[in-house]
Amino acid sequence: MTRKGRLHGIGVGPGDPELLTLKALRLLKAAPVVAYFVAKGKKGNAFGIVEDHLDMEQERLPLVYPVTTEALEPPLSYEAIIAEFYDGAAEVLARHLDAGRDVAVICEGDPFFYGSYMYLHDRLAARYEAEVVPGVCSMLGGAAVLGVPLVYRNQSLSVLSGVLPEDELRRRLVEADAAVIMKLGRNFDKVRRVLGELGLAHRALYVERATMANQRIVPLDEVDPMASPYFSLLVVPGAKWQS
Amino acid sequence: MTRKGRLHGIGVGPGDPELLTLKALRLLKAAPVVAYFVAKGKKGNAFGIVEDHLDMEQERLPLVYPVTTEALEPPLSYEAIIAEFYDGAAEVLARHLDAGRDVAVICEGDPFFYGSYMYLHDRLAARYEAEVVPGVCSMLGGAAVLGVPLVYRNQSLSVLSGVLPEDELRRRLVEADAAVIMKLGRNFDKVRRVLGELGLAHRALYVERATMANQRIVPLDEVDPMASPYFSLLVVPGAKWQS
Repeated sequence: MTRKGRLHGIGVGPGDPELLTLKALRLLKAAPVVAYFVAKGKKGNAFGIVEDHLDMEQERLPLVYPVTTEALEPPLSYEAIIAEFYDGAAEVLARHLDAGRDVAVICEGDPFFYGSYMYLHDRLAARYEAEVVPGVCSMLGGAAVLGVPLVYRNQSLSVLSGVLPEDELRRRLVEADAAVIMKLGRNFDKVRRVLGELGLAHRALYVERATMANQRIVPLDEVDPMASPYFSLLVVPGAKWQS
Repeated sequence: MTRKGRLHGIGVGPGDPELLTLKALRLLKAAPVVAYFVAKGKKGNAFGIVEDHLDMEQERLPLVYPVTTEALEPPLSYEAIIAEFYDGAAEVLARHLDAGRDVAVICEGDPFFYGSYMYLHDRLAARYEAEVVPGVCSMLGGAAVLGVPLVYRNQSLSVLSGVLPEDELRRRLVEADAAVIMKLGRNFDKVRRVLGELGLAHRALYVERATMANQRIVPLDEVDPMASPYFSLLVVPGAKWQS
């Protein structure tokens, strides 16, 4: 009987190819199959980070999202469409694993920190040996390039999605010692308004595509809300601890 | 006039030496001075992670904490003692930087995520060129070895310190979609009690020294509260998103 392949969820960091870990690089080079999520017609950020390390023998396995937005008109349902997509992707991977081929699923940032790999892990980790290699997540890449300490000493950090309804965002930000708001994109305008209402705008720092070649740091009041990309984030650092 | 040296705050990851990034390794090998915080009489976790990569020409600069606990009897004040210590450490580094020597301050995990490097950065970044290399933080190392996705989709993540007073801990945990509790140590018993009261104990996962050689994963009810080390953490993962 063939030994089953191993599943690896590999964090490849926030964008700068040098933020790959030694372990990610080793497992990546050894993987016969390298899978990655990608929007239709795109190369994919995660693939772009690692492609120089791959050789021609390794199979590239793009997993192409069937939709690019969560806002669909009924009777279409994002939840239903995406669940079916993950089911199918998991079965594609399962066929490789059943044939004894290890599969590395590369993920921008960290696999277990809002990464789509989680949906494959939940479907496959009971059936196959699965290991996750943690990566540098985008919020830490963001803090580093902004040059600002995120949380001091015993401060609490709230990591929030810009998709949250305005009242929940407001409630969570009021309570936060320090906050990172991810998934801005078309939610930017709402988030900036809430920060302004709470008197937090002067503390907030904004960066697009942190550590990537096309990174941009923009003052909060100069951001064009129609042009904020998905890979942007806001940091509200904790108050400096004067020690 | 001598060119001033550059200050680098370098995240070396949660413990596994393979979780060092390519960038951290490059800057580390190039640094004439490698500084690190350490308790008296210890080698230091961060130094242990990188020492195999250093050569004999590089100066090792341990910055030895003057105290090992924040709980001091009056008239001693942790805040005053530690502030004076950071002032002195910053001046030691400043002398190297003034002499044109680059200094790499290595930090377990990530420098801006509860790292002591922050206190040097706040003292020196206005005077010298300073760059931070983000690292894999311990909470992501913990989630990876526990094999559990941390946050799905638009869930919020609350990162909390075990040092928090019981009522604040309770309040923040009630609100959290997903939580990570760091700095357990002698706070473990209190934290476990609060998790139990809130009905979260069955969801909580515990790991000591995640990704280090002496890592231990222990069921919550089997943890000896007198023996929980500082480098332990609890993860309350977000509810699985069934997509």
